[in-house]
Amino acid sequence: MTQTAAIIGGGVIGGGWAARFLLNGWDVRVFDPDPQAERKIGEVLDNARRALPGLSDMPLPAEGRLSFHADLTQAVATADWIQESVPEQLDLKQKVYRSLQQVCEPGAIIGSSTSGFKPGELQQDALRPEQIVVTHPFNPVYLLPLIELVPTDANPPETVARAKQILTSLGFFPLHVRKEIDAHIADRFLEAVWREALWLVKDGVATTSEIDEAIRMGFGIRWAQMGLFETYRIAGGEAGMRHFMAQFGPCLKWPWTRLMDVPAFTDELVDLIADQSDAQSGAYSIRELEQIRDNNLVGMMRALKAQDWGAGAVLNAQDRRIKADVLPDLIAAQPDQPLLTLSRAVPLDWTDYNGHMTESRYLEAFANATDRFMEVIGCDSDYIAGGGSYFTAETHIRHLDEAHAGARIRIDTQMLLGQGKKLHLFHRMYEGDRLLATGEHFLLHVSLETRKPSAPSETIEAAMARLTRLQASMPWPDGAGASIRKPA
Amino acid sequence: MTQTAAIIGGGVIGGGWAARFLLNGWDVRVFDPDPQAERKIGEVLDNARRALPGLSDMPLPAEGRLSFHADLTQAVATADWIQESVPEQLDLKQKVYRSLQQVCEPGAIIGSSTSGFKPGELQQDALRPEQIVVTHPFNPVYLLPLIELVPTDANPPETVARAKQILTSLGFFPLHVRKEIDAHIADRFLEAVWREALWLVKDGVATTSEIDEAIRMGFGIRWAQMGLFETYRIAGGEAGMRHFMAQFGPCLKWPWTRLMDVPAFTDELVDLIADQSDAQSGAYSIRELEQIRDNNLVGMMRALKAQDWGAGAVLNAQDRRIKADVLPDLIAAQPDQPLLTLSRAVPLDWTDYNGHMTESRYLEAFANATDRFMEVIGCDSDYIAGGGSYFTAETHIRHLDEAHAGARIRIDTQMLLGQGKKLHLFHRMYEGDRLLATGEHFLLHVSLETRKPSAPSETIEAAMARLTRLQASMPWPDGAGASIRKPA
Repeated sequence: MTQTAAIIGGGVIGGGWAARFLLNGWDVRVFDPDPQAERKIGEVLDNARRALPGLSDMPLPAEGRLSFHADLTQAVATADWIQESVPEQLDLKQKVYRSLQQVCEPGAIIGSSTSGFKPGELQQDALRPEQIVVTHPFNPVYLLPLIELVPTDANPPETVARAKQILTSLGFFPLHVRKEIDAHIADRFLEAVWREALWLVKDGVATTSEIDEAIRMGFGIRWAQMGLFETYRIAGGEAGMRHFMAQFGPCLKWPWTRLMDVPAFTDELVDLIADQSDAQSGAYSIRELEQIRDNNLVGMMRALKAQDWGAGAVLNAQDRRIKADVLPDLIAAQPDQPLLTLSRAVPLDWTDYNGHMTESRYLEAFANATDRFMEVIGCDSDYIAGGGSYFTAETHIRHLDEAHAGARIRIDTQMLLGQGKKLHLFHRMYEGDRLLATGEHFLLHVSLETRKPSAPSETIEAAMARLTRLQASMPWPDGAGASIRKPA
Repeated sequence: MTQTAAIIGGGVIGGGWAARFLLNGWDVRVFDPDPQAERKIGEVLDNARRALPGLSDMPLPAEGRLSFHADLTQAVATADWIQESVPEQLDLKQKVYRSLQQVCEPGAIIGSSTSGFKPGELQQDALRPEQIVVTHPFNPVYLLPLIELVPTDANPPETVARAKQILTSLGFFPLHVRKEIDAHIADRFLEAVWREALWLVKDGVATTSEIDEAIRMGFGIRWAQMGLFETYRIAGGEAGMRHFMAQFGPCLKWPWTRLMDVPAFTDELVDLIADQSDAQSGAYSIRELEQIRDNNLVGMMRALKAQDWGAGAVLNAQDRRIKADVLPDLIAAQPDQPLLTLSRAVPLDWTDYNGHMTESRYLEAFANATDRFMEVIGCDSDYIAGGGSYFTAETHIRHLDEAHAGARIRIDTQMLLGQGKKLHLFHRMYEGDRLLATGEHFLLHVSLETRKPSAPSETIEAAMARLTRLQASMPWPDGAGASIRKPA
């Protein structure tokens, strides 16, 4: 049966909750007196529809129904979950609960998106304190997994368990905060950094931009995959967490932050933390954690590289410098040879459960070689920005041998046909002398406006004619023009 | 001409510097009295060789030469860059500089990896203060881009410029810290979070594991791509940074952290930050920033998914739940139809510069469909763990139409041959009724031990036989067995 969520208070946070529920098949009923609420939630939903579904590799449920209600009763009466995201004022939140508890199901869960209030404060003067918990999300709510779930002793364990189960079914990671405290857990860290950052800006030590670079180019990427303690466990090296704490313990008394009210650095505290760290990460050796960390970092940095952003933009800038140095005129370099169109190491994130480079990455490497070939004949990024490009129509790959992460591979490329809108390429991929694969590709020059085949520029025609002459004497490659045989 | 770096003090940090220099073609000379230094640096180098080269899409220089020296003079005499990473004791560091400045080139740059000391402190009593700067890296040094470059007025601008140029050539992102301060910039934030975290553990609010989840499942992923201020600019929504500050300004006085010595929240401070934020991010609208952020998050979360770690492990768990719900016995569901082997939305990170799903992702989708087909016939993860699997030997793809991010695509699969070690599949990819592509694949069952073809299990043989009977009446697919035509 379709479940129903009531969203009390739209905006960026309420809209994010609405999107999570809708895209997971729940019906969503919104109550927000803001006349702009429908537009605002619609914009968040547009973003969510663009980003969230593709995170899953599975078929997704049909979207639920979205409705807007001017009347609170209509919004909450049939709801299984009620999410409150009204402004951060305690008396306002308490008033909202008193109103909606008059009309909602006693079995519904009421979650509050509050950043800072403790659930005990929210439950004060409520009709049924036992159905109110803190469920604190992080923006963008439709993508980030974390929900801080903070109950009190007034909430029965079954309610907490059901809240966890529902949040998990929405793709969230509910973190059960066992002891209520101002700003829960994560926002205390955010606020600590914010307060320290305000001092740095105020004192002219750093600008907002410099502070952001200091975060995202270094520890920010680390924290995307391991938190503070697991990262420091690795930093302690073979000697682990106790060594790290012994090394950096004394700094606690140094003016490394404006926060100088520090805990006493006792043996008891060191033991407490080292024991918890063992429980958390002890299943892995330091060497294993290092490799897991590096796999994660390489995957994420290459993802940012594809977006040309942050650490990924740094990698691209480095590649451009290398390219300018080492790849001048490819055709002039080896006029009577297939062109060297790719030379690289196999990245850590190109391997699969069989322990070798996975099949789609062979095509990625061949596609990169095709891109390089296109550049050589004049179809570079400027040309593409001008509205012309090549689309691959057909591909034939023969996998002849395996390659592993770190292997130095290269691809050379023979042009079998380059005439008018047609381009027929044959790539050979090697590691050393070992032929790993061949990739045969038929491409068509297209207009990016009409998405239809079109004639290339005269420059490209001339470059193809020159290559045709240069490569005329090369033999027809073994395996070109072949097909997968029909079984007898 | 090959350049030379001297590494003073090995360990995890010195080893990371050694790896950066070596893998970028520099010769590296190590001085470290620790008898374990060679082993420790070797281990860091192994990690670096595994992870760093694949970050680049370009050919890499040949590795430089690595040597270890018991004599300081031998290590530093010819060095262009000297990196000091000895323990965090000011008098020790000063003593090291006095020794090495006796024998090094006056034009060499001496960088210190110090986490906390100010360059002015390091330069005290030095023979040539002008050649000493702080170059503070982040672990793993061979992967993370950030270097905090902190000079003083004693360093000539040419030295600072040369240090930046060299660090950039090594793939680093040098952040010029303009005003020296204890712990520079990034470590002040790390220390603020560390201090706050120690309180939470000590007071029993959270364990190390809960704290790490609070970081990596939420703001940690955000900070991997945008820092504190750019993230909050987006949170302010259409109204931007001033709105965000007005909203959360009052919290500065609340006990949201143990740091209660906060800056006065004046109009002047708000203007300072809002103006800097405009200068930093004003080139993008909030909507554009949201989409950039979401592209980055989706790419990184999918990278973590491939590693089954952190936020990626949450996504996989969600997929497994959906799979259990919606994909029971595929064969029984549609006995006389090609099997539905994939149904999903096209992720944001599957598109390319032509604005559509890029060619290698077609093969990735087909490969996922093949994986699903393998599961159906009994070649699942348990079977693969037992040492048998299928390797693709040959692939033929026809690209018939375009698909865009967010499109709901599906693949159905016809088995053309399944007999002994041979498996011949034909996939069709659709968006709605539109045929986007076909993928024809010839696979061989292999032993993962010998990496050679081998017979599959009897269960797989039986499943293939059953499918052969069920699919016997299906027509030979249009396009199967075809090849790219040889030009006339």
